[in-house]
Amino acid sequence: MKEINRETIQGMIPKRSTDSHKVDYGRVLVIGGNEDMGGAIILTASAAVYSGAGLVTVATAKVNHVALHARLPEAMVIDMYNEDRLLKQLSTATVIVIGPGLGLSAESLAILKSVLESVTKEQRLIIDGSAITLMAKNNLKTPIAKTTYTPHLGEWQKLSRLKPAEQNETLNVQARKELKATVVLKQSRTEIYFLDDVWKNSAGNPAMATGGMGDTLAGMIAGCSAQFKNYRFAIITAVFLHSKLGDDLAKKQYVVLPSQIIESIPFAMKEFSTKFIF
Amino acid sequence: MKEINRETIQGMIPKRSTDSHKVDYGRVLVIGGNEDMGGAIILTASAAVYSGAGLVTVATAKVNHVALHARLPEAMVIDMYNEDRLLKQLSTATVIVIGPGLGLSAESLAILKSVLESVTKEQRLIIDGSAITLMAKNNLKTPIAKTTYTPHLGEWQKLSRLKPAEQNETLNVQARKELKATVVLKQSRTEIYFLDDVWKNSAGNPAMATGGMGDTLAGMIAGCSAQFKNYRFAIITAVFLHSKLGDDLAKKQYVVLPSQIIESIPFAMKEFSTKFIF
Amino acid sequence: MKEINRETIQGMIPKRSTDSHKVDYGRVLVIGGNEDMGGAIILTASAAVYSGAGLVTVATAKVNHVALHARLPEAMVIDMYNEDRLLKQLSTATVIVIGPGLGLSAESLAILKSVLESVTKEQRLIIDGSAITLMAKNNLKTPIAKTTYTPHLGEWQKLSRLKPAEQNETLNVQARKELKATVVLKQSRTEIYFLDDVWKNSAGNPAMATGGMGDTLAGMIAGCSAQFKNYRFAIITAVFLHSKLGDDLAKKQYVVLPSQIIESIPFAMKEFSTKFIF
Amino acid sequence: MKEINRETIQGMIPKRSTDSHKVDYGRVLVIGGNEDMGGAIILTASAAVYSGAGLVTVATAKVNHVALHARLPEAMVIDMYNEDRLLKQLSTATVIVIGPGLGLSAESLAILKSVLESVTKEQRLIIDGSAITLMAKNNLKTPIAKTTYTPHLGEWQKLSRLKPAEQNETLNVQARKELKATVVLKQSRTEIYFLDDVWKNSAGNPAMATGGMGDTLAGMIAGCSAQFKNYRFAIITAVFLHSKLGDDLAKKQYVVLPSQIIESIPFAMKEFSTKFIF
Repeated sequence: MKEINRETIQGMIPKRSTDSHKVDYGRVLVIGGNEDMGGAIILTASAAVYSGAGLVTVATAKVNHVALHARLPEAMVIDMYNEDRLLKQLSTATVIVIGPGLGLSAESLAILKSVLESVTKEQRLIIDGSAITLMAKNNLKTPIAKTTYTPHLGEWQKLSRLKPAEQNETLNVQARKELKATVVLKQSRTEIYFLDDVWKNSAGNPAMATGGMGDTLAGMIAGCSAQFKNYRFAIITAVFLHSKLGDDLAKKQYVVLPSQIIESIPFAMKEFSTKFIF
Repeated sequence: MKEINRETIQGMIPKRSTDSHKVDYGRVLVIGGNEDMGGAIILTASAAVYSGAGLVTVATAKVNHVALHARLPEAMVIDMYNEDRLLKQLSTATVIVIGPGLGLSAESLAILKSVLESVTKEQRLIIDGSAITLMAKNNLKTPIAKTTYTPHLGEWQKLSRLKPAEQNETLNVQARKELKATVVLKQSRTEIYFLDDVWKNSAGNPAMATGGMGDTLAGMIAGCSAQFKNYRFAIITAVFLHSKLGDDLAKKQYVVLPSQIIESIPFAMKEFSTKFIF
Repeated sequence: MKEINRETIQGMIPKRSTDSHKVDYGRVLVIGGNEDMGGAIILTASAAVYSGAGLVTVATAKVNHVALHARLPEAMVIDMYNEDRLLKQLSTATVIVIGPGLGLSAESLAILKSVLESVTKEQRLIIDGSAITLMAKNNLKTPIAKTTYTPHLGEWQKLSRLKPAEQNETLNVQARKELKATVVLKQSRTEIYFLDDVWKNSAGNPAMATGGMGDTLAGMIAGCSAQFKNYRFAIITAVFLHSKLGDDLAKKQYVVLPSQIIESIPFAMKEFSTKFIF
Repeated sequence: MKEINRETIQGMIPKRSTDSHKVDYGRVLVIGGNEDMGGAIILTASAAVYSGAGLVTVATAKVNHVALHARLPEAMVIDMYNEDRLLKQLSTATVIVIGPGLGLSAESLAILKSVLESVTKEQRLIIDGSAITLMAKNNLKTPIAKTTYTPHLGEWQKLSRLKPAEQNETLNVQARKELKATVVLKQSRTEIYFLDDVWKNSAGNPAMATGGMGDTLAGMIAGCSAQFKNYRFAIITAVFLHSKLGDDLAKKQYVVLPSQIIESIPFAMKEFSTKFIF
């Protein structure tokens, strides 16, 4: 495995060209947040906006629209249960996240299936949280979009059918090949399985072990993917900065909140987009 | 073209007189924010309040009222689909913004037409976002109010019928004359077309290329227009401070959020209202 | 007139005794905020909480409950249109504010009349904003509670029947006697008319001339009145600190927002409760 | 009584192990917040999250869901009046708080009874606010869960049947034995009654005498209980840090708001988890 560290990500964050517009930085659609778990999708959407995505739309249960706007007026909202509206929005997206707070109900599954059938091979798709469980439970196949799964270890077990004791790099690589998708395997030192190489993060700490942290990472991956031409750079950068910010905040905090990480993203991206530290 | 820079705007921001009251600083009405795009009008309203408008009322879809108040208790709210209420409020406004997040539906068009028919020649009107597209699509004429359009390049093409490749100062000046309105042509170096002179901004950067940035500028133009007797000074000041604040924030941030610019407005206005820097 | 300044208020803010409880610092009920003007009552309630009131309950239109809680979880909420609930809450209050954002409708008048009939002579009542206009329009009499009116100059004209040109200290004192209430006459240098003496503020500036500033002062008067045994000290302290904070913030800001003043109250009260500056 | 101070709590806050996950830090369920008092449960939930609980779910009236998410996207929400949903969530919780803003209605009592019947002896239960009054009024027995009551002096009188003048350590110890539960007796110097020893806090000040402060303490006890193996350490730590943070903030503030304490918790926990100060 290659190590992800401060030096690895040098040069990965693109310099924005002077004459660029918001549409050059992608249209992100984040789908999730049922009646109980609206906070998850608010965190994902916020992370995408603070990572620099050009335009972010949130498809979520109607009850979450007000809280989303109260926290993040920069995003747009639609009702995720309105299939026509969802698919229309989906067709304009360059990056899609599905799963944070989506839930496991029949309606959640129907939304997931709609999305899987409708994405195109040009789109980047991040499958996170509830959507991973739904994929595994229902034996759904990875769609033709450029797909990334972001399971934690428990979700990876469901997806790969590998028991925790069995999991090792070789078997994970094999499972990833069968999935036909990039895998971001979240853990204390997160691993990224691309088609032909594997990376292991060197940052992160247990003060980050709190609800919403994974939703935030999914949003950062989406935000970076919307802007970076190189999708590997986008995923590596998001994984590293997420835990690097967690490390910075943990110097003074016993627990680090996802919303604190989100507010710090633009500063970390600036630091790593301009400085070379050796 | 004349350049807008730190020196240009010296002396443009009026000193408030000791015995003044909020009504001396204008009554702004911002109209927009449908069910999907409430964040846009929240940003516009916030920018107007933070620019110093005396009283700000927001006409928006009912679903946006709670999020607006949760972020900005300083503003009042009405339902934009209630025509009687809207026109009553309109009659008391000194400055009106229509368009941020308004949408392109038949109801949105009906609201726009009502406003165009009801404004008076004493009122200042800013036509932004969806409202520009609706004007162009439906061949609507600029009303008798003192009107400013704030198109980005794509919207300007619709409004002026000039293809991007054709656009140049001479043709833009000509198109602006036919429109009978001031044009703030948003781009990396924003241009302002007044009746007899043209200005070009010297500030701004690509970290500002993110959703909601234009909504924020519209609110700043409204806020300044509500207070400045000289409407040219108001527009020039808003355009410059908006991008100047973006430049300041971009020194430490890879992306700059509209809500961050908004919070900084009172400080920048203070700086430029008192200091002369040469 | 006596001047209100830094020295005047020395010794007015009581030292809290070690063994005290929240109920020792009063039960404030703030009544206002109709469907359009919910922000006003949010500001009043926030100012009362940040001034140190022990318990604050907000009676407002239901649509405002969520925004209130999103900004101020420290307060409780009830529906102001539910008369039974309102009068029950009123009976437990030590200080009542009525008026910010109340509106001028028949329902607003009914609420005001209910309150006027139900207050007791032990309770302190602050009549602000729309409630002042309603009092004047309907020739309603000051109730038996210890009452303070907080009109701006326009509202004072309605209440006193004195035209602006006529207004002077002697006539104001006379009008105040007929009202049988303390009058806080808001203006660039606010005046306070007690039964037998008149005070004039020495602080305040035109950066404070913005919507919501009066609602904030009403909340500060309520908060101080709930804690101070001496009601004159409470009113003088609130009037001075409100504009003194505005002066501090205006050193760096072109416009000062009410919500910024509110957040600074606990610091200013600490400063003036402990230091004697001569 | 043993004194709780800076030295007492040294070593009580556990060091998080490198390979830990959010589920290692507990599943907290906070139950409360009726239609009038939603702010109380928002404060409790926030305190639990900021204390480091792994996952926090809030069971509250539906009207409070939006405000909760607008302030705290890190938490999940369910309707507390939906008994099936509540009991399902309860069965997965490691720590439960019931009472903040719960109210005294028949529905509130029904919820409390459901919870008392359903908790298991492995779960930690904190009974606070309205729930204490309901227990006393209805002669309800402490359930088999590891239970802590957090009464203030007035609530303790109802629960213990001891008049204020009668209360002393011996009688309190006796009353606590009959209750079969730990008692956190809130006052200017809060006392903790464990089965076989009694502790008295040395921190706290009257600037903390404001609404919501007790709700915040309940959330901190829950958050610490979810993470600490030793429940006594959890309670002692929460009681001390709550008032210690209040003391720190009161150095510059006349009144200290619960939401200010909440934001400071992760910093104080870090300080006391690593430094030994003698």
